[in-house]
Amino acid sequence: MARAHSTAGSDSGSNSSSNSCFSGYDLDLDRAVEMIRKSGAWRVGLQAPEGLKRAAPAIVGLIEGQTGCEVIISGDPCFGACDVDVLLCREVDLMLHLGHAELGEAPGNVIFLEARMKEDLWEVVSRAALLLKEKNVGVTTTVQHVHRLGQALAALREHGISGLLGPGGGRAKHPGQVLGCSYASARALHVQEYLFIGTGKFHPLGIALATRKRVVTADPVTGEVSEIDTDPMLRRRFGAICRAKDAKRFAILVSKKPGQKRIELAERLKELGRARGREMFLVYLDNIEPDRLLNLGAEAAVSTACPRVALDDAAKYKIPILTPTEFEVLLGVREWADYKFDEIE
Amino acid sequence: MARAHSTAGSDSGSNSSSNSCFSGYDLDLDRAVEMIRKSGAWRVGLQAPEGLKRAAPAIVGLIEGQTGCEVIISGDPCFGACDVDVLLCREVDLMLHLGHAELGEAPGNVIFLEARMKEDLWEVVSRAALLLKEKNVGVTTTVQHVHRLGQALAALREHGISGLLGPGGGRAKHPGQVLGCSYASARALHVQEYLFIGTGKFHPLGIALATRKRVVTADPVTGEVSEIDTDPMLRRRFGAICRAKDAKRFAILVSKKPGQKRIELAERLKELGRARGREMFLVYLDNIEPDRLLNLGAEAAVSTACPRVALDDAAKYKIPILTPTEFEVLLGVREWADYKFDEIE
Repeated sequence: MARAHSTAGSDSGSNSSSNSCFSGYDLDLDRAVEMIRKSGAWRVGLQAPEGLKRAAPAIVGLIEGQTGCEVIISGDPCFGACDVDVLLCREVDLMLHLGHAELGEAPGNVIFLEARMKEDLWEVVSRAALLLKEKNVGVTTTVQHVHRLGQALAALREHGISGLLGPGGGRAKHPGQVLGCSYASARALHVQEYLFIGTGKFHPLGIALATRKRVVTADPVTGEVSEIDTDPMLRRRFGAICRAKDAKRFAILVSKKPGQKRIELAERLKELGRARGREMFLVYLDNIEPDRLLNLGAEAAVSTACPRVALDDAAKYKIPILTPTEFEVLLGVREWADYKFDEIE
Repeated sequence: MARAHSTAGSDSGSNSSSNSCFSGYDLDLDRAVEMIRKSGAWRVGLQAPEGLKRAAPAIVGLIEGQTGCEVIISGDPCFGACDVDVLLCREVDLMLHLGHAELGEAPGNVIFLEARMKEDLWEVVSRAALLLKEKNVGVTTTVQHVHRLGQALAALREHGISGLLGPGGGRAKHPGQVLGCSYASARALHVQEYLFIGTGKFHPLGIALATRKRVVTADPVTGEVSEIDTDPMLRRRFGAICRAKDAKRFAILVSKKPGQKRIELAERLKELGRARGREMFLVYLDNIEPDRLLNLGAEAAVSTACPRVALDDAAKYKIPILTPTEFEVLLGVREWADYKFDEIE
């Protein structure tokens, strides 16, 4: 245990001496300053998720002070690397996107500065190990903790468990990384059980539904460890399909966000619905919020944007919001037994 | 009076026989259908203000049925011709923007389809005439009623009043038209009194503050006529400046909307504030809403977007939001006696 603790500092990306700490995250602002200086950029954009937004004015001061450039903060909400502020990108020479790993669908002037949480994984992973049943376990996490995965694997080894990381690539940049909309790194592993390290139930539910395997989750912030049960969510989703069954008028929501935009899928669903007698129309949106749908008179909606819109935010909406595959179940072109968690390729 | 009534139908744009009526508005959809056919567009965008959004799915049906193209509705809020959905414009061959007159700052593939209200102006203008004191009166309205201005002038003539229309051009397309952010057509007239025909108090307050002249307002929907008193608003604005006086940290809000974007003005205000010891930062936003500002930690804001953000929506915000000229008053570089209503050029 002592060894693992002492080696934690040598995990990739944890060279915090040259980093800056904001809101409990390490950000490699030195790299940003260097790139601004090298490029000669004079107007720079700064985009951050809500958890880092409070630090934005201080970061503006730091960058402007060290480079002499002008920084403009993106004031709209930011939910991921899928959600680069493309309109601000057009106004600036360089765009700093904080908190998320590169996704591969952003304008060329975006620099992704991942935010790394300081939380130690040793203790929470050691406790999660007691809930694991297999000897080979797929290990997954979100970008904030990827730099500590070496420590997590070491903690598992102490319990005789071999932790395996799926490959990075596609939407997830790092080995072992999952996104709310992509579990490819988990699906690539031939294991019977997964450990998810991170906050919230959405990602581990996604892993469980994408792989149909057992998932144990370990939250480094709260220290909580538990086994994931997909039944409540599946029941809720079945209920949403039933509620939408008799709807005549469906809005198909298409996101403006570059990494969430699935127009071709939306068009396919529109044809599918119309061929089965539903009234279908396409709606293009930036942030999908309940009041956006109020005046359109839809009785139900299908979201082709971030899967969280349908799966996580359902309670906020007065009408049922389905994922693409749920809409296929509703139309009878997919069996409920073939239910698939919505992922973006 | 009878003559004026009978000639109302010959006012420009009221040839409703070839138009379509939605939510109480005449829309020249025949022209849209013709332009879609001529251009061979296969994917068409449809953007409408909230008052017309309920009609959007029916308009989609009509256009798709008559042309065979695919229509995508813009689901984000739309506040004017300043607010063309530029991201949707990039996805479609043609963009139909409903309800507003052309502003001159939109992508080339946008077709503006003005919405014309059916309301008769004769009676309400006749009653407003009784409140007017001058023989020469500037007559102003919003785009929904411009096609009826001939009727309004005729009604004034019956009361011995000569109604004058300021020139169209700049942000306002039609003679006599005003926008929430532009009163150039009113300012161009050498009169001592104005009549505003339309809904709400914002436009007539703008005319009164932009011209410092007496304004009578006539609402064709409610039938209400009244004289505009600018004092309550000026007191509220003075109060907002006082509340912001001791703020150290100011956000300067810059709109993403093509017709509301004033980056150079924002940069000038930033320098002005910094030179006087305030902490200033620029924030780029689409829809300016209270929750967008919560996490940025600003103690006050200056909005360079639509003037309604500061002047009309102030009550929604926890921090004072000033217009650019109000910020100049706060900094002491402009006298309160030189207070200017915020207009966009």
